Amino acid sequence: MKCFMDKDFLLDTQTAKKLFHEYAQDMPICDYHCHLNPKEIYENKAPETITQLWLSGDHYKWRAMRSCGVEEKYCTGDASDREKFEKFAYALQYCIGNPLYHWAHIELQRYFGIDTPLNAKTADDIFDRANDAIKNGDFRPQSLITKSNVKYVCTTDDPVDDLMYHKLLKEVDGFDCNVLPSFRPDRALNAHLDGFADYINTLAGVSGVKINSFRDVITALLKRVDYFHEAGCRISDQAFDYVPFAIADDDEIEAIFARAMNGEKISMQDADKYRTPILLALGEKYHELGWAMEIHIGAMRNNSTRMFKSLGADTGFDSVGDAEIAQPLSRFLDALDEKGVLPKTILFNLNDKDNTVLATMLGNFQSAEAESKIQFGPAWWFLDTMDGMTNQMKSLGNLGVLGKFVGMETDSRSFTSYGRHEYFRRIMCALIGRWVEDGWYAYDEDILKEIVQGISYNNAIKYFNFG
Amino acid sequence: MKCFMDKDFLLDTQTAKKLFHEYAQDMPICDYHCHLNPKEIYENKAPETITQLWLSGDHYKWRAMRSCGVEEKYCTGDASDREKFEKFAYALQYCIGNPLYHWAHIELQRYFGIDTPLNAKTADDIFDRANDAIKNGDFRPQSLITKSNVKYVCTTDDPVDDLMYHKLLKEVDGFDCNVLPSFRPDRALNAHLDGFADYINTLAGVSGVKINSFRDVITALLKRVDYFHEAGCRISDQAFDYVPFAIADDDEIEAIFARAMNGEKISMQDADKYRTPILLALGEKYHELGWAMEIHIGAMRNNSTRMFKSLGADTGFDSVGDAEIAQPLSRFLDALDEKGVLPKTILFNLNDKDNTVLATMLGNFQSAEAESKIQFGPAWWFLDTMDGMTNQMKSLGNLGVLGKFVGMETDSRSFTSYGRHEYFRRIMCALIGRWVEDGWYAYDEDILKEIVQGISYNNAIKYFNFG
Amino acid sequence: MKCFMDKDFLLDTQTAKKLFHEYAQDMPICDYHCHLNPKEIYENKAPETITQLWLSGDHYKWRAMRSCGVEEKYCTGDASDREKFEKFAYALQYCIGNPLYHWAHIELQRYFGIDTPLNAKTADDIFDRANDAIKNGDFRPQSLITKSNVKYVCTTDDPVDDLMYHKLLKEVDGFDCNVLPSFRPDRALNAHLDGFADYINTLAGVSGVKINSFRDVITALLKRVDYFHEAGCRISDQAFDYVPFAIADDDEIEAIFARAMNGEKISMQDADKYRTPILLALGEKYHELGWAMEIHIGAMRNNSTRMFKSLGADTGFDSVGDAEIAQPLSRFLDALDEKGVLPKTILFNLNDKDNTVLATMLGNFQSAEAESKIQFGPAWWFLDTMDGMTNQMKSLGNLGVLGKFVGMETDSRSFTSYGRHEYFRRIMCALIGRWVEDGWYAYDEDILKEIVQGISYNNAIKYFNFG
Repeated sequence: MKCFMDKDFLLDTQTAKKLFHEYAQDMPICDYHCHLNPKEIYENKAPETITQLWLSGDHYKWRAMRSCGVEEKYCTGDASDREKFEKFAYALQYCIGNPLYHWAHIELQRYFGIDTPLNAKTADDIFDRANDAIKNGDFRPQSLITKSNVKYVCTTDDPVDDLMYHKLLKEVDGFDCNVLPSFRPDRALNAHLDGFADYINTLAGVSGVKINSFRDVITALLKRVDYFHEAGCRISDQAFDYVPFAIADDDEIEAIFARAMNGEKISMQDADKYRTPILLALGEKYHELGWAMEIHIGAMRNNSTRMFKSLGADTGFDSVGDAEIAQPLSRFLDALDEKGVLPKTILFNLNDKDNTVLATMLGNFQSAEAESKIQFGPAWWFLDTMDGMTNQMKSLGNLGVLGKFVGMETDSRSFTSYGRHEYFRRIMCALIGRWVEDGWYAYDEDILKEIVQGISYNNAIKYFNFG
Repeated sequence: MKCFMDKDFLLDTQTAKKLFHEYAQDMPICDYHCHLNPKEIYENKAPETITQLWLSGDHYKWRAMRSCGVEEKYCTGDASDREKFEKFAYALQYCIGNPLYHWAHIELQRYFGIDTPLNAKTADDIFDRANDAIKNGDFRPQSLITKSNVKYVCTTDDPVDDLMYHKLLKEVDGFDCNVLPSFRPDRALNAHLDGFADYINTLAGVSGVKINSFRDVITALLKRVDYFHEAGCRISDQAFDYVPFAIADDDEIEAIFARAMNGEKISMQDADKYRTPILLALGEKYHELGWAMEIHIGAMRNNSTRMFKSLGADTGFDSVGDAEIAQPLSRFLDALDEKGVLPKTILFNLNDKDNTVLATMLGNFQSAEAESKIQFGPAWWFLDTMDGMTNQMKSLGNLGVLGKFVGMETDSRSFTSYGRHEYFRRIMCALIGRWVEDGWYAYDEDILKEIVQGISYNNAIKYFNFG
Repeated sequence: MKCFMDKDFLLDTQTAKKLFHEYAQDMPICDYHCHLNPKEIYENKAPETITQLWLSGDHYKWRAMRSCGVEEKYCTGDASDREKFEKFAYALQYCIGNPLYHWAHIELQRYFGIDTPLNAKTADDIFDRANDAIKNGDFRPQSLITKSNVKYVCTTDDPVDDLMYHKLLKEVDGFDCNVLPSFRPDRALNAHLDGFADYINTLAGVSGVKINSFRDVITALLKRVDYFHEAGCRISDQAFDYVPFAIADDDEIEAIFARAMNGEKISMQDADKYRTPILLALGEKYHELGWAMEIHIGAMRNNSTRMFKSLGADTGFDSVGDAEIAQPLSRFLDALDEKGVLPKTILFNLNDKDNTVLATMLGNFQSAEAESKIQFGPAWWFLDTMDGMTNQMKSLGNLGVLGKFVGMETDSRSFTSYGRHEYFRRIMCALIGRWVEDGWYAYDEDILKEIVQGISYNNAIKYFNFG
């Protein structure tokens, strides 16, 4: 029996160990998509307990607890920090096979120096030891980021954001990580959701563009893209349940827009007709500025109306959709490609049934503009598991060019989640190591080093024109 | 080379062997979903040959035979028992990788004491030895169930059933297994199928409810739920090609119902509008009584019109569908959850492309009402294979909480099929054992014992409030 | 570490080695579906460089190069043969996990006698050595086919083809391979595509049938089926994005046909109404003649309008679709089966999410007309990978009868691609060998030999009534 999560965790061949320890482990991190809060990074407050650090905003952990029948007061309610931690530890022991189990232990080991497996029996002792570590150590956000060797953090920001904290962070002495904004225009696109008209009015105010037409929305958004570009933004992000692509003429779109601005309920079909020209205009703009366009496909959000009313969004009530995506995604990318304005694009799927669709879609639109200009995004959110990451890399390896992959991002809201990059790199080295050891890929240390360091960090830096 | 299907079959690590032999193997069985016939259990007749036991009603075996070009007379026709067995043995030798091959050998070993691999060469000898074992042993249904250590058998029953045999079975001396009915209202829901009006009239007669409206159908069904509850039923079962969810107003539903009762052909869309309020009313009732609601999704039945006309349903001409399920399933569960009347629910998929959808759907609707109130049902029917079961458990492990899983049921029509629980437990112990041996989960004998015995039996007993 | 791609490549157990080396390796090849050009086989010209052989028409390689940011002039443009080869070698070193990497090295080893791993550093040297091998050896198509032990090549041919080269090839002395046509009526079916009317007029001319109605199209096609049958054809091939099945009355179909012949744009729904009766009539005819009907499902073609305009079809801009297929495929097969005219059928999927649908669809329509009359086609095109082939065989093993599988075809346009049969056989022997070594299938050398040689060659010969 191998030791529990020791230095060779997940590394099941000699080549895997060599690749990870010699080449992958010490590479810096480029976290090109996450949900860290720039204000929290700037304010740089230390947590008081591990419960604050781990359980105050992590819907992964709440889901696991609820799945074990734990009452809501121990998740998001008013139970004490110790009680919440005990309940989490109880739930964790049943999470066999879940990445949460590995993430928690990687974080305990790396940030707290605690090697003891966490379960109901050890919960109290670990709670005390972790809190001592916090008291005696430095668990402020900037320190955790620096300690994790993170060189780039790309947050997720609304077009109306003034990016004040990104600007302030540039001035902080002794904090060398580049915290850059990403442009996420979802709220300007979702004409079918409540609050759309208010949002558009805010956008008008922030951008200084009078908005009377969907064409004005485009004008306003493009101005904000420029504003974000000034602030160092090089990445945009779009999140779709499914891929919207519906061509309509301007008159029809104007009528839809007018109804939405009037507070009327818009059908999904109509919303897609409105979204399509905006997305095409944004894509063209991203291309012009050399940005990368991320497309996250397949989350089905806020499934529990009861809990959405009680807790709001991003509280652990999302799951994976299963819409057909191949046809509209192809048509959307082609519409940009045909005009020569398709930007660098990273396609993320939340349903692994779509791996083959995405991994082959890439090849339709590659060009000499970048190495693997169209990327298959790493396994994300629910798929950020051993099996999910392995399957994504196998799909990309089988169907595309794994050696040019831009690799991992955390997609996280937590400052200790950088262990997920280590987790990813171990899985990547295990996969490549096994292929080499089995005689499936020629052993050439230079090439393997380039590939492993590329997927760990270098490919992303080159792809995004960072560094 | 490991020995063929010996005591350590499928157990590829020391931990797997220990977990299976010390903890899983001797646990009783809670078969919470099957198609055993309570009349046959009660009448308790011994078979005369292994062909009667194995080939008289097993469409899995017929399919394998037909796939080898075997003529129908050897499957469901008038060939002799010896000839049928020979043809089956011939087909079985080509079924490399098929669970049928393993099930057959587990049954030969456990029930007949025969270790010889079955193939065309050994067929005749095994036929004779098996029939001797039947003649000299006790192969009556109650004996097979008792010998298999089955404590609960939940059959599948129509709302109009009088459950006479369930009642009679309670009185049988020396037969300690609890044979409980399950409530399967499919025929009352399928307004688009032939025979609907006749069925509703039967339901009216049995329930004593005059049925002039779809609301009366609900009243009648709820009365039958109470009747089933009295008889010990704690589980309902719904079988869907896809997930129906279509909200309509009462007038429209009444018109649809009237047309269906008039013998007119109803579209699927209309059938769904009729089904939706009935399913919601049933769900609420199940919740009130503390029942579990099973939902089996994705079977596409009776594909061969020619063979359906010749042999009827459940004769081996069903396969797996691929409809989108995430959205309607979410809306159906949410409609109950929002009112606080969502019962304990077990979601089964027949297409493994839906594993990720189901394993993440659970988390949307968990609550403190039960540990893993919403369950991901075990790999079922076509997925009841090594890969299917492993993948279902990996999905649940990756995306939910495997340690609270209610585990296996047979879904079978055969009295020797309890070997499938052994098969499941071996696969479960192999998976968990490998994770532990690879250092992916901390070795703690108490916790592992609790998890393994939980998935084998204890979790189900607790979940269904049995015992 | 195992040696790189040596004689035991992919064979990870003793049983796998034995099965491959003793039983599979030396079996002849029946390539029952490919895109080799009969004219090129007949003309039998030697290539001048490895670039001509490898890179003049292989869109797999172009895609890999484009995915590494290689400019188009090195793929399909006017760069020198040496430059193109260098760029390909550069790209190949990043293709870790891609079958292209294995195919290239198998071909280098078997046809060129070169064991050196190909990468950017070794490209120039290998280019020279490979060209020497070509100069000093015999790389003419007929020699490569003969050397590869290919007994049957089934090309892919249009109904209007005169099959001249197939006829001429029968007369070639010393070339013993049977080069047979396959009937691919796609262009007569695709009423929604440009050029349809012109094509139908050509068909009228070639068949001598005056075409004024869709019924006349059927008459003309059936005449061409007879013509193909005379020339030795025993296989037809249909390629679908999705499975079309839409029943309409003759008047409606005639109106659709008239519009299409008039050059009007036809919707997909209308195109399906037109296609359905033609496919049913063809299916019946195939059944009458004992042909096999191949159905290739799921390619989404020519996604890049820009590159389609520049390079045309089959140049590397296709990917995998994700339409629902279970229902229409079931209805199509049932429509033939109910009349007793369903031919032998091989179902191919390009999206592995459909493996379970296809592997269970087979069982609905088997009969005593042939052993595994309905076949699950081997992993094809994008799925022709280690994982893709393994998963297809596991699906078939789990859900059907692997021992009666007709096995591999190349689907290739290249004369050195017969290494893919070796690749397939290694993967098949590895899978079966592992099952045997793990004690999951009884070791019986006669049976294993029959299964392995069956899947390699014998099953196909029997299935197609060749030999």
